[in-house]
Amino acid sequence: MSETTRQIQLARRPRGAAAEGDFELVEAVLAPPAEGEALVENHFFSVDPYMRLRMSGDSSYFAPWPLRAALDGDAVGVVVSSRAAGLAPGDWVASQHGWCERFVAGAGEMRSLGEPPAGHDHGAFLGVMGATGLTAYVGVCDIIVPRPGESIFITTAAGAVGSVAGQISRLLGARTIGSAGSDAKVRSVTERYGFDAAFNYRTRSTRRALGEFAPGGIDGLFDNVGGRQLEAALDAMAIGGRIAKCGAASGYDTPIAPPGPRNLHHFFGKRLTMRGFLVSDHHDRRPEFERRMRGWLAAGTVVADETRAHGLEAAVPTFLGLFDGANLGKTIVDLAG
Amino acid sequence: MSETTRQIQLARRPRGAAAEGDFELVEAVLAPPAEGEALVENHFFSVDPYMRLRMSGDSSYFAPWPLRAALDGDAVGVVVSSRAAGLAPGDWVASQHGWCERFVAGAGEMRSLGEPPAGHDHGAFLGVMGATGLTAYVGVCDIIVPRPGESIFITTAAGAVGSVAGQISRLLGARTIGSAGSDAKVRSVTERYGFDAAFNYRTRSTRRALGEFAPGGIDGLFDNVGGRQLEAALDAMAIGGRIAKCGAASGYDTPIAPPGPRNLHHFFGKRLTMRGFLVSDHHDRRPEFERRMRGWLAAGTVVADETRAHGLEAAVPTFLGLFDGANLGKTIVDLAG
Repeated sequence: MSETTRQIQLARRPRGAAAEGDFELVEAVLAPPAEGEALVENHFFSVDPYMRLRMSGDSSYFAPWPLRAALDGDAVGVVVSSRAAGLAPGDWVASQHGWCERFVAGAGEMRSLGEPPAGHDHGAFLGVMGATGLTAYVGVCDIIVPRPGESIFITTAAGAVGSVAGQISRLLGARTIGSAGSDAKVRSVTERYGFDAAFNYRTRSTRRALGEFAPGGIDGLFDNVGGRQLEAALDAMAIGGRIAKCGAASGYDTPIAPPGPRNLHHFFGKRLTMRGFLVSDHHDRRPEFERRMRGWLAAGTVVADETRAHGLEAAVPTFLGLFDGANLGKTIVDLAG
Repeated sequence: MSETTRQIQLARRPRGAAAEGDFELVEAVLAPPAEGEALVENHFFSVDPYMRLRMSGDSSYFAPWPLRAALDGDAVGVVVSSRAAGLAPGDWVASQHGWCERFVAGAGEMRSLGEPPAGHDHGAFLGVMGATGLTAYVGVCDIIVPRPGESIFITTAAGAVGSVAGQISRLLGARTIGSAGSDAKVRSVTERYGFDAAFNYRTRSTRRALGEFAPGGIDGLFDNVGGRQLEAALDAMAIGGRIAKCGAASGYDTPIAPPGPRNLHHFFGKRLTMRGFLVSDHHDRRPEFERRMRGWLAAGTVVADETRAHGLEAAVPTFLGLFDGANLGKTIVDLAG
């Protein structure tokens, strides 16, 4: 007997900000698992700002999502039935088959998961133990490479990646400065995530805040937003500064991108390096990352927050909410709740 | 008896484009050489676009030139009299004591020069064998690191640095594409400097030209100008592209810098790296550079052009002409002529 699933599909490509009407919740029939495949029940999947780029048809480096077909994205679930060697019912697996309740796929599209860290469920493999944690780890440890006493500025410091990037920087001995979009988030950045300083970029000049918190200049920048904060940070960079660029949320949903920073001349004057990266290129760093992150979580030296939405119906409003700046930490859709 | 010199001084700091009235030619008395010092007669000195930044008082990383005092800049001259061990009359030396006819300084401020390459005089140590050649070498060999068959785009390809950077890239096996600001320069770029393709960025869309000459994308960019050409090049970069940034001439003399590239999101999507550098950080690369460049010049595989102006009075108009785009190759003031 064939199983069915409910899944979110893209109904049309948005212009400007995405809206509910761009998506549709549909029921689909799943073919029974063939040899080498398994049926998986998703427990969690991830909604991320970069997915806005996949909604457009003109991206040269992210494959655009198809219209009226299954979408993809990070997901964590449990094997229900299996015709694949090495996968048994009850096994927890990570996959790219998000935005749906269940799916059938080959074993090569799944990665078996170990136990979650103490105090966490398997949803952590979408967040601090998953792509967002690894993004923070690669950006800080491989690109910024903070030296003890250096000042590191992290935009979206209350976000899934930024909050972890700041905590890793601090563990490496750096002074950490974060920006966030509300006073409540700013409090979380210093009180929960232990940044040395933080400010609300909506109510305070980034330039003035950096002048106060890093009078000797910024040695590292973990930039998730671009735009005006990047421009101000370039002015504040110290000689030899390093910039890890893993997002540009300030331009994700605007059909005409805002002007870029006027001060790229700092690159040669200050001998700056900016390197963009996608975590998907850095799976080789996962074993070291998982080992160290498990240790930090066990010791309580890294704190990770999640915003959880419940049920497939909540996925689209939750995704859209990412651009309102309402969420703290990693945003996950919990299908079991 | 004390010697005198004529020297160019900065009379006032320009706003916007520099002008003749910002400079003054004055006569100065030189103290006789003290123990460890020498008197040097300059034969050549260099005028460079970056000097515009030194005319302003607000640069955070270039020491601003003082008002009404000796300026500095690359110079090559001959020792006239010496009280310094290791410096004898007739020795050729490089120094930072440009913009003047003669000067007295300590031996530590001079570097003894070997013979110039065949077919060149000692002025070459300001150009292809000096800071501009080394800038091209470091930018290409250490930052872009072209692999055979890759496409490298070089802005200001008819300029002192760009023309050499393109020739080095080609010697490393890359396809080279250059932009320049006149049809005559474009011809030099392909016919004299051997680029595979070149175009006039004033009359042709950089975006369209790159689409035609590098349909598979640009793997390396040697960017001396920033601005719109950088924006178009970012759109054309291939995944994993590297950008060497050694200047931003398009914003040197504008009090309000033009908007920067709107498309820095390419940095993470395409995993780009941009690194700014100043040649003054890379003197350790000089021995390898001089050895290889002598070989290339001797074999005729690198061609270097110079624009020479004659006499101290020509220095200021020649410097100002750098921003009109009139010069080909390295611009040198020849005091002996």
